[in-house]
Amino acid sequence: MRQKRYFLTEQEIPAQWYNIQADMPNKPLPMRNPQTGEVLKQEELYPLFAKELVKQEYNQTDAWIDIPEKVREYYTYYRSTPLVRAYGLEEALGTPAHIYFKNESVSPVGSHKLNSALAQAYFCKEEGVTNVTTETGAGQWGTAMAYAAKLFGMESAVYQVKITFEQKPYRKNMMQIFGAQVTPSPSMSTRAGKDILTQFPNHNGSLGTAISEAVELARMTPNCKYTLGSTLNFVSLHQTVIGLEAEKQMEMAGEYPDYVIACFGGGSNFSGLAFPFMRHVFDGTHKDTVFLAAEPTSCPKLTKGIFTYDYGDEAGYTPLIPMYTLGHDFRPSNIHAGGLRYHGAGSVVSQLAKDGYMKGVDINQLESFEAAMTFANSEGIVPAPESAHAIATAIRVANECKKTGEKKVILFNLSGHGMIDMPSYQQYLSGSLQNAHISSDEVRKNVEAMGDLTKRK
Amino acid sequence: MRQKRYFLTEQEIPAQWYNIQADMPNKPLPMRNPQTGEVLKQEELYPLFAKELVKQEYNQTDAWIDIPEKVREYYTYYRSTPLVRAYGLEEALGTPAHIYFKNESVSPVGSHKLNSALAQAYFCKEEGVTNVTTETGAGQWGTAMAYAAKLFGMESAVYQVKITFEQKPYRKNMMQIFGAQVTPSPSMSTRAGKDILTQFPNHNGSLGTAISEAVELARMTPNCKYTLGSTLNFVSLHQTVIGLEAEKQMEMAGEYPDYVIACFGGGSNFSGLAFPFMRHVFDGTHKDTVFLAAEPTSCPKLTKGIFTYDYGDEAGYTPLIPMYTLGHDFRPSNIHAGGLRYHGAGSVVSQLAKDGYMKGVDINQLESFEAAMTFANSEGIVPAPESAHAIATAIRVANECKKTGEKKVILFNLSGHGMIDMPSYQQYLSGSLQNAHISSDEVRKNVEAMGDLTKRK
Repeated sequence: MRQKRYFLTEQEIPAQWYNIQADMPNKPLPMRNPQTGEVLKQEELYPLFAKELVKQEYNQTDAWIDIPEKVREYYTYYRSTPLVRAYGLEEALGTPAHIYFKNESVSPVGSHKLNSALAQAYFCKEEGVTNVTTETGAGQWGTAMAYAAKLFGMESAVYQVKITFEQKPYRKNMMQIFGAQVTPSPSMSTRAGKDILTQFPNHNGSLGTAISEAVELARMTPNCKYTLGSTLNFVSLHQTVIGLEAEKQMEMAGEYPDYVIACFGGGSNFSGLAFPFMRHVFDGTHKDTVFLAAEPTSCPKLTKGIFTYDYGDEAGYTPLIPMYTLGHDFRPSNIHAGGLRYHGAGSVVSQLAKDGYMKGVDINQLESFEAAMTFANSEGIVPAPESAHAIATAIRVANECKKTGEKKVILFNLSGHGMIDMPSYQQYLSGSLQNAHISSDEVRKNVEAMGDLTKRK
Repeated sequence: MRQKRYFLTEQEIPAQWYNIQADMPNKPLPMRNPQTGEVLKQEELYPLFAKELVKQEYNQTDAWIDIPEKVREYYTYYRSTPLVRAYGLEEALGTPAHIYFKNESVSPVGSHKLNSALAQAYFCKEEGVTNVTTETGAGQWGTAMAYAAKLFGMESAVYQVKITFEQKPYRKNMMQIFGAQVTPSPSMSTRAGKDILTQFPNHNGSLGTAISEAVELARMTPNCKYTLGSTLNFVSLHQTVIGLEAEKQMEMAGEYPDYVIACFGGGSNFSGLAFPFMRHVFDGTHKDTVFLAAEPTSCPKLTKGIFTYDYGDEAGYTPLIPMYTLGHDFRPSNIHAGGLRYHGAGSVVSQLAKDGYMKGVDINQLESFEAAMTFANSEGIVPAPESAHAIATAIRVANECKKTGEKKVILFNLSGHGMIDMPSYQQYLSGSLQNAHISSDEVRKNVEAMGDLTKRK
């Protein structure tokens, strides 16, 4: 019988995360303090994040960082996740390509997000934190953080992007099962939220607005830290457990990927799968691997964004981050891939994209759902709308192989399932879903209008 | 690191199902033709079911039946499912008991139902069937059958119990993703549906009404067969892959269960886990294992039902089955565990219960949700409301162990996850869920009112 799924034993689950910063030919530019324009010091982030996480954020020397034993123990609740050979999809496409996916959707909360939530909760708890705040888009991160906080005996407050709060009510329920207080953002509960609502009544929310509110709440609450689901280096670091497992599992399958593909919101899911393979580009053992980051045509920071310093949030509470950005006040259209509705890319992925190690691919909403349907009907798993962007990209490559006859090996990350995204599918099936798009020109104007933020005091 | 999850390799996935009928000390009574009262011949079922399935239904001699290679291949898409040591739950309860669960919720459709759906689809396809019909309660079976039909290139039509159709709209969407035509039952699309609605306007539906409609549609459609999710022997047979895997996995963990627990609707999930272990009661190697079937207090066929001949459906289209029943016209209250809202137990489990090999346990709705919350917060997985009945029973036993200090080994089946059951959880969290209950006296009166159906011509 041909082998469909590959697992690691619990002993084989990685004991260390991979810190790509140590190996990057060009290090990412530093973050800057928006008030002074100066390079941001580690200490300036201590009020916001657990110290250990800040150290990870700044660490550019150690390629390997130990996973705490308690985090590794909780990883065993769902890891290793299976590496799956997508025979069903290959047959449906009639492609000679070999398609593999890493199935992160089997995590208890339904996505890869738990990999970092457990780590962030652990480091917060170690430093005596009692309450955490966070933002969430589609709800995958908020669910993961709520569950992780519960496991470590902390309270959690989640700001959920308003449009998704309304589109996907089940996510809110799930966070509540794990004891989280969930507030749609922008809300009237923070100054940032009030300001945004005053300026833009009926604002649908974005990850940018939710981050502003969560950051503000953390700042105003004693013994409370902010946690976040993507963009920063330490989040990507924790997610590398995905790629490190996948590397061993691909070895079990006797193959090495020619293409490594993941969807792209802030970058953590992409980084998690890609970075461990990218180190073999750096060390020269696998120079030709192609890394594709799949983003929506309606929120295309890699394919149409500008590389500059920008805020991580809408209200301008975060440090300035060197990133490919659409502008921190960019309001993405209401596509269903809520987790990809973010204006910027993290500093590490931005630098890697700038240096040509990875490439953005833009996928429109209808293509993503068409890919999701093909995948669901051949592999049985209904993917999250975010992950559907990775699937669509993998299908493009596989169809190209069909034309050329090449047996390329494709690996993509199934970052989450779509069981809680049924209203999106219903709209797709009823024909009422639409594509959305923004031009390079519009993006350029929006970013130029911000001016040079490092000099705006 | 202590081991949390146990998997089998694909080679170790069972190559045969276990047919308990061959080993039963007392064979189940035969089904009867409701028109004649005579013992039902195999041929009488051929218009309804694929022949091979009918043969399995009647097979009382072969203890082992080969799993077709194609079915086994599709099993590898999600099997083996993990056997999980519930360390989190044990710690939350402070019990000395060792608790294990078989996690069937990782199947692509979210429950154990796919084990039989794949088999039924295969045998239908082999016999040239082009369309299948079926019923579904909570929607787990309908989803599984829709997906399996799609894999084998057949059309599917699903009658879903009306109350669940309305309570859990995401399930309908999921079936539609897999190409199923979904109709709420009772509907005006069949004679049975019309008759029921005429007699009982605003009927909420039950598995009994949905079966009547699906059976009628299959009978009226050329080249179409009926498939079903529980009750009959061949369904239980296919589900034994659960227990056969669990047996090997418990061996890997170095333990043998003192208690085997599953929730109970028609019996297939219970049978699937329990039968392979029950054979060791028959052969004397493990005589003292306790088998508990967890049912809702509002639909208590094992704890309060009467053992007699009854129809499998509300309209009286099916053969007469020797079963513990609440009466085929019993209308269960609208509890959220839709998959357990069925009036009867299959003939094999009924005989085994009669002979004392297994015992019913009744769990009320609030206790089931309380157990579900404890489980979600300690193991991370939000269980289906049905499976929550098994969890509640396991918790009862574990709490008993806490009192006595005994280190009993408990194994239960997590038959499905509850990601699509969020409205139930929301009602529980908001305090608006209620218990429901029916007395032995009411049950007795309802069943007595039917009279002896084998003599009603």
